Amino acid sequence: MSERLIHWKNLYSFVKRVMMKCGVPEESAHHVADNLVVSNLRGIDSHGVGRVKRYVGGIKDGYIIPDIAPEVVKENSVLANVDARNGVGQNAGMFGMNLAIENGRKEGIGLVTVFNSNHYGFAGYYAMKALEHDLIGISLTNSEPLVVPTFAKDAILGTNPISIAVPGSRNRPWVMDLATSVVPRGKLEVYDRLGQKTPLGWATDERGISTEDPAKVLNNVLHGYGGGILPLGGEGELHGGHKGYGLSMMVDVLSGVLSGSNFGPDVIFRKEGAVNHPRVGHFFMVLDPAFFMGIDAFKKRMDDYIDLLYKCDKAENCPRIYVHGEKEFEMHDKRAKDGVPLDAKTVESLTGFADEYDEEIEFMD
Amino acid sequence: MSERLIHWKNLYSFVKRVMMKCGVPEESAHHVADNLVVSNLRGIDSHGVGRVKRYVGGIKDGYIIPDIAPEVVKENSVLANVDARNGVGQNAGMFGMNLAIENGRKEGIGLVTVFNSNHYGFAGYYAMKALEHDLIGISLTNSEPLVVPTFAKDAILGTNPISIAVPGSRNRPWVMDLATSVVPRGKLEVYDRLGQKTPLGWATDERGISTEDPAKVLNNVLHGYGGGILPLGGEGELHGGHKGYGLSMMVDVLSGVLSGSNFGPDVIFRKEGAVNHPRVGHFFMVLDPAFFMGIDAFKKRMDDYIDLLYKCDKAENCPRIYVHGEKEFEMHDKRAKDGVPLDAKTVESLTGFADEYDEEIEFMD
Repeated sequence: MSERLIHWKNLYSFVKRVMMKCGVPEESAHHVADNLVVSNLRGIDSHGVGRVKRYVGGIKDGYIIPDIAPEVVKENSVLANVDARNGVGQNAGMFGMNLAIENGRKEGIGLVTVFNSNHYGFAGYYAMKALEHDLIGISLTNSEPLVVPTFAKDAILGTNPISIAVPGSRNRPWVMDLATSVVPRGKLEVYDRLGQKTPLGWATDERGISTEDPAKVLNNVLHGYGGGILPLGGEGELHGGHKGYGLSMMVDVLSGVLSGSNFGPDVIFRKEGAVNHPRVGHFFMVLDPAFFMGIDAFKKRMDDYIDLLYKCDKAENCPRIYVHGEKEFEMHDKRAKDGVPLDAKTVESLTGFADEYDEEIEFMD
Repeated sequence: MSERLIHWKNLYSFVKRVMMKCGVPEESAHHVADNLVVSNLRGIDSHGVGRVKRYVGGIKDGYIIPDIAPEVVKENSVLANVDARNGVGQNAGMFGMNLAIENGRKEGIGLVTVFNSNHYGFAGYYAMKALEHDLIGISLTNSEPLVVPTFAKDAILGTNPISIAVPGSRNRPWVMDLATSVVPRGKLEVYDRLGQKTPLGWATDERGISTEDPAKVLNNVLHGYGGGILPLGGEGELHGGHKGYGLSMMVDVLSGVLSGSNFGPDVIFRKEGAVNHPRVGHFFMVLDPAFFMGIDAFKKRMDDYIDLLYKCDKAENCPRIYVHGEKEFEMHDKRAKDGVPLDAKTVESLTGFADEYDEEIEFMD
C-alpha cells in the first residue's frame, strides 16, 4: 500500500457508510464522518480518518455502543449534564454542544458537561460549531493517560485539549485548539516512523527522565512501563512544566470529575487485560458576545486584535506571525480543492473496511 | 535598609491605613490590603505589598480613581458585565466575584466580566473566594504587555493568568494560579538582582532571539526596544510556544475583548509619555458542583484525584509530587506563624509611606 489522494466528499461518504454498517444510526454516523474528515481537511491527520479503525474496534469490543442515544440527566435554562451511555463520542459531543448553543442563544450562556462518553474526535470541531451562530464556543475533553505530572514517573493524565473559537468579520474566526502536553502522541509516532530523535523535553523514559527516543516512549506508554509525554512547559518546573500539568488537570476536573465521568488513569478502554468503558468526559460552553455589546462591534474588536498581531514586528529570521486556526483554514481550502492525502497505513485500514463491509472507496489517483 | 519580618496582621492594618489616607474607602482598602497580604502569606511576593507603591502612584497619577464604585451595566440571572469606572482593581474584582458567587449559588453558574479596571492583585485570590461556598471559582485577567507572540519581536500580550480553585475535603482545595508565560517578570528581576544568567527559552532580546541576560530584557521591555518574556512553551513552536501564546490570547479575549475593556498592547498606564487608564479587564466564573452531584460526592472525587497524584511513582531523583496550591498553603501556615519576610526594597517603600502618611509600621525584628 502507498499514499493515496481522495476527494473529501468520497472520504466522508465512505466513512459514514462504514459506521452505519457497524450499527451506527445515520445522524450519528454523519457526526463521526464529518468530524474525522474536517480534521483531515484542516491538516490534523492525527485525528482524521485513521481513527475509524479504533472506532470500529471499540464497537466490536463492546465499549462503544453504536446505537444508543445520549440522555439529559439534569438541566436548567443554562446548564446541563448529559449521560452519553457509552455511545459514540461524536454523537454525544454534538448532542452536548447543540444543547449549549441552544441555551447560549436564549440566555447568553450555555454550559453542558457530558459523561460516560467515548473519544469525540478533535476538540475544535465542537468549538467551531458555535461560530455558525456568531457565538464563542469552548470545548474541552479528557482523554487516555499519556502525560506525566511534574516530578512523576507514571503517565496518569491525558493530553486533555482546550479549544476556543471566536467569531471575526474581516479576519477569519480565531480558533485555538491545543493539547495541554508539549506534543500529541501523533508527533512521537511521526518521528519514530522517520527514525529521528525527538528533542529533549518532549517525553520521559521508564525512569522518568527526558529522552530522545520516541520508539522507547511509545512502547513504554503502551505497556505501562513508566514515563510518557511531558506536560506543556516540559520537564520539571524550570520552564513551567507544572503549568501544563495544571492545565491538563483543569480540563480533567471540568470534563471528568465534575460531570461524574472517569478521570485521570481510568480513561482507558482496556483495564487489567479486559475491555473497559473509558467513560470519557466532555465540557462545552457557549457565550454570546451580543450580551456584552453589539455583535458587529465585538467582531470588529476581534478583527482589530488579529490585525495587531499581523502588524507586529517579526523576530529575526521569522518571516510570518500566525494566529491560531489560520494554518488550518489555509490547509482546509487547499485540501478541499486538491484532495485529502492519506498515508499508507490509513489507506490499508480503509481498504480493509471496504472489503469487510462490501463498500466502495473511490480515490483520486 | 535591610530585610525585615512583620506579622501579617500589622502588615494588613498598615497597608489598609495607607490606602485610606490615599482616599480609598474602608471596604475597598480592606480588599487591597487583604489581597496583597494573602499573596505574601502564600509566598507570591511578586504580587504582595511591594505593589503598594504602584497603587499609590496610580492614584497620584490619576489613572486609579480611589473612591469610585463599580457599576453593573448589563445583567441577567447568570451573566453580568461590570464597569469598574477606572477604580481600584481589587474593589472591582471583589464586586465582580461576589456577584458571580451570588448567581452561582442560585443558578449553579455565575459569570461576570469587568471592564475599565486596574491591576487586581493575584488571580487566585478571587478563585479561592468561591471555596468558602463550596463552589468552583475561576478568575482570569489581562495585564500589561510583556509577552511576545510566537515569531514576533514585540511584547504585545500580558502574562494573562488563569486561576481555578476547586473544593476538596480530606485534601486541601486544588488551587491553580499560573501566568500563561514561561515565567512572570518578577522571576527575571530576581535573577537580575542576583547577577545570574536566565535559562535560554525564558525571554527574547531586541532582535527577538532567546537571551540569557535578564537586565537587558527588563530594560528593553521598559523602553519598548523589542523582545520580552516568552509564552509558556518557549521560543518558536518546537516545544509548544504557540500554545502559551494562544492561552494568553484566550484570557485577553474573555476578559478584555468580550467585556469591552482594553486588550493587547493597550493595557498600559503610560502611553506616548502621558498617563493613561490601562482599562484592565477581568473574567470571573463560578460553578456549583452540587448541580452535578452531591457536594460531598464531588469533594470525595477531588480527594481521590489528588490521592492518585500523591501515589504516583516519582521520577528518578524527584522526592515529591506537588499538587497546585499545596506549596502556597504550606507557606501560608508558616508565614502566618513566623511572620512575613519583606525584602529591603519593600521595607524602604513601606517606611517611606509611613513617614509620608504619618502611620506607624510595626516590625517583628
